[in-house]
Amino acid sequence: MNNTRVLLKQRSEGVPAEQNFELENVAADMPGGGDLLCETLYLSLDPYLRGKISGRHISGAINEGELMAGETVSRVIESKSEQFNQGDIIAAHSGWQSHPVISADAARTVNPELGPLSTLLGILGMPGLTAYAGMMRLAELKQDDVVVVSAASGPVGSMVGQIAARHGCRVVGIAGSAEKCRWTVEQAGFDHCINYKTEVLRDSLRRACPEGIDVYFDNVGGDMLQACMEQLATGARVILCGLMAQYNTNEMPPGPNPAFIIKARATVRGLVVYDHEDLRPEFEQRVSQWLKQGEINYREDCVNGLEAAPRLFCRLMRGENFGKAIVKVAE
Amino acid sequence: MNNTRVLLKQRSEGVPAEQNFELENVAADMPGGGDLLCETLYLSLDPYLRGKISGRHISGAINEGELMAGETVSRVIESKSEQFNQGDIIAAHSGWQSHPVISADAARTVNPELGPLSTLLGILGMPGLTAYAGMMRLAELKQDDVVVVSAASGPVGSMVGQIAARHGCRVVGIAGSAEKCRWTVEQAGFDHCINYKTEVLRDSLRRACPEGIDVYFDNVGGDMLQACMEQLATGARVILCGLMAQYNTNEMPPGPNPAFIIKARATVRGLVVYDHEDLRPEFEQRVSQWLKQGEINYREDCVNGLEAAPRLFCRLMRGENFGKAIVKVAE
Repeated sequence: MNNTRVLLKQRSEGVPAEQNFELENVAADMPGGGDLLCETLYLSLDPYLRGKISGRHISGAINEGELMAGETVSRVIESKSEQFNQGDIIAAHSGWQSHPVISADAARTVNPELGPLSTLLGILGMPGLTAYAGMMRLAELKQDDVVVVSAASGPVGSMVGQIAARHGCRVVGIAGSAEKCRWTVEQAGFDHCINYKTEVLRDSLRRACPEGIDVYFDNVGGDMLQACMEQLATGARVILCGLMAQYNTNEMPPGPNPAFIIKARATVRGLVVYDHEDLRPEFEQRVSQWLKQGEINYREDCVNGLEAAPRLFCRLMRGENFGKAIVKVAE
Repeated sequence: MNNTRVLLKQRSEGVPAEQNFELENVAADMPGGGDLLCETLYLSLDPYLRGKISGRHISGAINEGELMAGETVSRVIESKSEQFNQGDIIAAHSGWQSHPVISADAARTVNPELGPLSTLLGILGMPGLTAYAGMMRLAELKQDDVVVVSAASGPVGSMVGQIAARHGCRVVGIAGSAEKCRWTVEQAGFDHCINYKTEVLRDSLRRACPEGIDVYFDNVGGDMLQACMEQLATGARVILCGLMAQYNTNEMPPGPNPAFIIKARATVRGLVVYDHEDLRPEFEQRVSQWLKQGEINYREDCVNGLEAAPRLFCRLMRGENFGKAIVKVAE
C-alpha cells in the first residue's frame, strides 16, 4: 500500500514557502503488535506547527527531512490491537501522511456522532477545547463583561466569542479583513469586529470598549497585545494563548510594559491546551449539543489532498486563511 | 506656630537631585471645623512618590511649587473634630511638613501599641500591607514553593520573604549590595540572596532555583523581571508590585515576551495596595504579634529632620538606602 507523505525539506527563516516542503510516495509501513494501519481522512493545520519548525514549541521540534507533524482524524484499516477494530474512527498526531501506522496507545477514539468529522479537529477538537478551557476555566467570565478576542474568525477566536456571547458578555472581535469581520458579526453573533488592517486599532478599541476591556483572549501577541493591554478595565483578565505575530520570526520581541498590568490590577494567564484534557468529555458533550441545535457556527478553510497542504499552511502563516485550516485527505 | 514644609521646586527628568526640592518656613494654618492641627512625628519616603512627581501615579500628581506628598504618623495638638482628641496618634497623607492641618475624615487612628511608631509606616504600614496582601491573597502560596523577591532588604521585599519563610517556602532574595544580602539571610531568615550588582543575575538565579521559580514578587520591573520570567517553573505566580527600574524615566520600556508566561502557564497579577484595605485589621494584628515575639525583623534607614528628607529621597531613588526610608520629624 502506498503512503503519501509531506516532509519538511528546509526550515524557513521567516514566513514558510511551499518549496520548504517536499511530497514523497513510499510503501506504507506494516503494523506491528499493538499498532493500527490507518487511512487519514482529515489533517489539521495549526499555527503552533510553525513553532515546531523553529524547534521552540513545547511539544518538540520538526527537523529537516522529517515528516511534518499534525493532528489527524483517520479510519483504522488494519488493527493489531485489541483496543480498536477495523473501521473505527480515531484521532492521533500522525502528521502529514495518507497511510500512517499508529500505536494504539497514541490513538484516541472519537465519536463520529458528535459532529462532521472535520469539526473533530476544529470546533470539537483542539482549537475548540482551547477556547472552552480558556473561557470556562481561566477567564472568570461574568455577565456583561466586555470580551475582546483577536484572530476572531479562526477556530479558537470564533469559539471564544461565541462562548462569551452565551454568557451574556459583549463580544468584540479583531480580524484582518472585512469579510472575516462580517462573518463574526453575522454568523458568529459577535457584537462588533474591528478590521485591524484598515482601522486604527487603538482608536477602534477605544470606541468599541469605552469602559475598557474586561477580558482579552490573545491569539496574536505583538502590537495587538500591547494595544489591548493599554485599554484594560480594572480587574481585567488576559489570556495569553497564541503568538501569531512572532511565529514567523526567530526573535523574541519584547512585550507590554508591566505597568499596564499593575494599573488595571489585571490577571494575566498563560494557556496551554494540553493542561485541560480533563475538560474534554464535558466540552465535547456541550459543544456538540450547541452545534446540533444550531446555536454556534464555525468556518473552515478546507483543501483537498496532501499535495495542497503546504500551500494552505503557508496561507495560514500569512493570515490569509479564513476559518479552520483543514486538509481533506480521503473520504 | 511655625510650619516647615518641603516643596517640589522642579520636576527632574531622571534621578531626582536635592536641588529639585525647596524648604520653606511658614505660619501653620489654623484648623477649621472638623480639622486637626498636628505635629508630624515620622514621614515615610516611598518609591511611588517618584511616579507622582512625573504625574503618572494612580494617586495623582505633585506639581512644581506644591508640597511634597507622603504618609505620616503624627500627634494631634489641637482637635476641632469630635473623632479625635489632643494627643491622639494618627496616620494621614499629610506630606513633607512639620505642622499640617489635616481633615479628620482624612486621618486614620493608629494604635501605638502595635509597635514602634516608625514601623506604622513600614512593616506595620503600607509596605507591610503590600507584602501581606500580595503573599496572602494573590500568591497562592504553597509549602516548598521557591519564592524570589527583588529589592529584598526593603520594607516590602523583606516582609514578602519573611511571610514566605513562615509558610515553609524556600526564599531567594535579590538585592544590590553584599551588606543588604547578608542582612536578608542573617536577620530576615532568607535562604539565599543574590547580589545583582556583582553576580551574573541569570546564572545565579539558575543556581539558586534549579527547578525554577514558583513565585516571583517583583518590585523592580525591567531586566530583573525579564530574568525571572525566563526561569519560571510550571504554574508559577508572578506579582507585579513595583517598577523601580523605570520610576526615574519618562519612558515606558517594553516588558517580557508573553511566551514566557504561556510556557510556564504562569499567572501574573498586578498588585495595588489600596485594593486591600480590608485586610488591614488582620494584617496589623498578626504582624504586630510576630514582631513582638521577635519572629520577624525589619531595617530602617532613618534621618532626622525635614531638611534631610530630599537627600534621603534621592538616595532611595538611586537604590542607595538600606531598609525603610523614614524621616524622623519630631519625638
